Amino acid sequence: MGEFDLIRRYFQRPAVAGVEVGVGDDCAVLVPTPGARWLVSSDMLVEGRHFLSTVDAARLGHKALAVNLSDLAACGATPRGFTLALALPRADEAWLAGFSRGLLALADAHGCPLIGGDTTQGPLNICITVFGEAPPGQALLRSGARVGDEIWVSGRLGDARLALEVFRGTVALAGDGFEVVRAAMECPTPRVALGQALRGIATAAVDVSDGLLGDLGHILSASGVGARVEVDALPRSAVLAAQPQALQRECGLAGGDDYELVFTAPRGAALPDVGVALTRIGVIEADPGLRVVDARGTAVAHGLRSFDHFAA
Amino acid sequence: MGEFDLIRRYFQRPAVAGVEVGVGDDCAVLVPTPGARWLVSSDMLVEGRHFLSTVDAARLGHKALAVNLSDLAACGATPRGFTLALALPRADEAWLAGFSRGLLALADAHGCPLIGGDTTQGPLNICITVFGEAPPGQALLRSGARVGDEIWVSGRLGDARLALEVFRGTVALAGDGFEVVRAAMECPTPRVALGQALRGIATAAVDVSDGLLGDLGHILSASGVGARVEVDALPRSAVLAAQPQALQRECGLAGGDDYELVFTAPRGAALPDVGVALTRIGVIEADPGLRVVDARGTAVAHGLRSFDHFAA
Repeated sequence: MGEFDLIRRYFQRPAVAGVEVGVGDDCAVLVPTPGARWLVSSDMLVEGRHFLSTVDAARLGHKALAVNLSDLAACGATPRGFTLALALPRADEAWLAGFSRGLLALADAHGCPLIGGDTTQGPLNICITVFGEAPPGQALLRSGARVGDEIWVSGRLGDARLALEVFRGTVALAGDGFEVVRAAMECPTPRVALGQALRGIATAAVDVSDGLLGDLGHILSASGVGARVEVDALPRSAVLAAQPQALQRECGLAGGDDYELVFTAPRGAALPDVGVALTRIGVIEADPGLRVVDARGTAVAHGLRSFDHFAA
Repeated sequence: MGEFDLIRRYFQRPAVAGVEVGVGDDCAVLVPTPGARWLVSSDMLVEGRHFLSTVDAARLGHKALAVNLSDLAACGATPRGFTLALALPRADEAWLAGFSRGLLALADAHGCPLIGGDTTQGPLNICITVFGEAPPGQALLRSGARVGDEIWVSGRLGDARLALEVFRGTVALAGDGFEVVRAAMECPTPRVALGQALRGIATAAVDVSDGLLGDLGHILSASGVGARVEVDALPRSAVLAAQPQALQRECGLAGGDDYELVFTAPRGAALPDVGVALTRIGVIEADPGLRVVDARGTAVAHGLRSFDHFAA
């Protein structure tokens, strides 16, 4: 199977509205919505770094697009399309069939067509760039949090990290519990509808990819504010809640790979109901820095930090 | 140096017109030109596959963006911005300084700002996605070639392949000659101004990345036509013209990595002068397939084919 056969067989799709030219020319040609802003994000996934070599190909296809859609969600954008650049050690048809199935199922669910990309031989590497739209001035940014705003998070935090610890052998979980957290790690749900519903309501937003402390820290830096977060308020699964407190806190505060939205909104704002649980976890304060407290308001010491690919 | 320091130091740039949000949020936010179509292309470069591990970092930065701008050029698009996703074995400051210098110098020359991306640890891999604009209906596609159109190519073909043969040890060149062809391989010039000037004139266009035969073949397939190409008419450098005829033909017809534009235009069309040589190399015919002939019109036998990353 050659490069062009591979593209035709697994990645070429019928044209859709708004896409004048899709896969198969030098560029894709898209019709922007008049007046809309154009939003772009790009994420690269490397084997052994972002995913285990043993992961199911369909789940990997899903996750590769999910982490990109999560960036659009964090900005409140409506997905319009994506490109896929793929380096593969070899053209393994079973793997490609699974990968493209998982990838394109999520793309279809969000009306976000694959419009182009590149395929080459090399160490397994998946780079997706995703495009979306938002009305002028309505994209959710990191820079709008104000003193007194409440801090909210969607869904649950920490399950993906708990699953990683099982793979690392530091935690043992019974079968059902492991499958729950493994699905959180391998099949995250991008909060695309929530992000769009938060336009005009949230003052700042970010998605939790590197860990709550670090990602919320981006909001604090960009907005020039501080925060107090109540660690025991972090939403967590029953599986995580059954673990020792120190592990619960580590997974919730610094786990990463959650792909939930953390956002700020004025106290009393009417938050949207899109079928995703929202939990208030803290408040924006004038004093710079991020203070973690327990349910009694006592400071919780922690040496946790977010994931950094090049930290010493 | 951490991941965010690395981005700030080497890749974060002042805001420019048309970019509301650049590097540093979950998404970049761009202001599209009212009425324009949005064009997107993505290319991934892998060490040992698309470039030698010994290549100068600044030249690599230049080339990584050049091959993407070449896709915009082939569609006649005006560049608007690009994202960079970079997997690095380690954060090598000398390499990053050189790479970003070469990359951003070419970006500045084309008014195409770096607006976002991703940085991670992994085997060296460079994925750039580039965005441009063109008026509705004016993007140059592969599908518009008509019987009787003339086939033109910009610049010169084959030097990059000749340089590769020197690196492979199959050809020896004296110092000056080697530097000329090495620059063609490592520092290609994307024909961005030519592409835009060909809007409304060229009937089809493609850039020569995998080799003339294969890339012209894409035009023929997409347009449902055939072609006759006169091999001795292919524009070549003095260095290549001094090589044996068989090598000249191989480099010109199937060399790849040229990043020149090959396009079709009606006989007698007034072609633009943007300071790039244009050479007529053949004609579009109704009979399917691609016929290569010499200056006397005699068929030239060749077993050449274009580069395919997954060909057996």
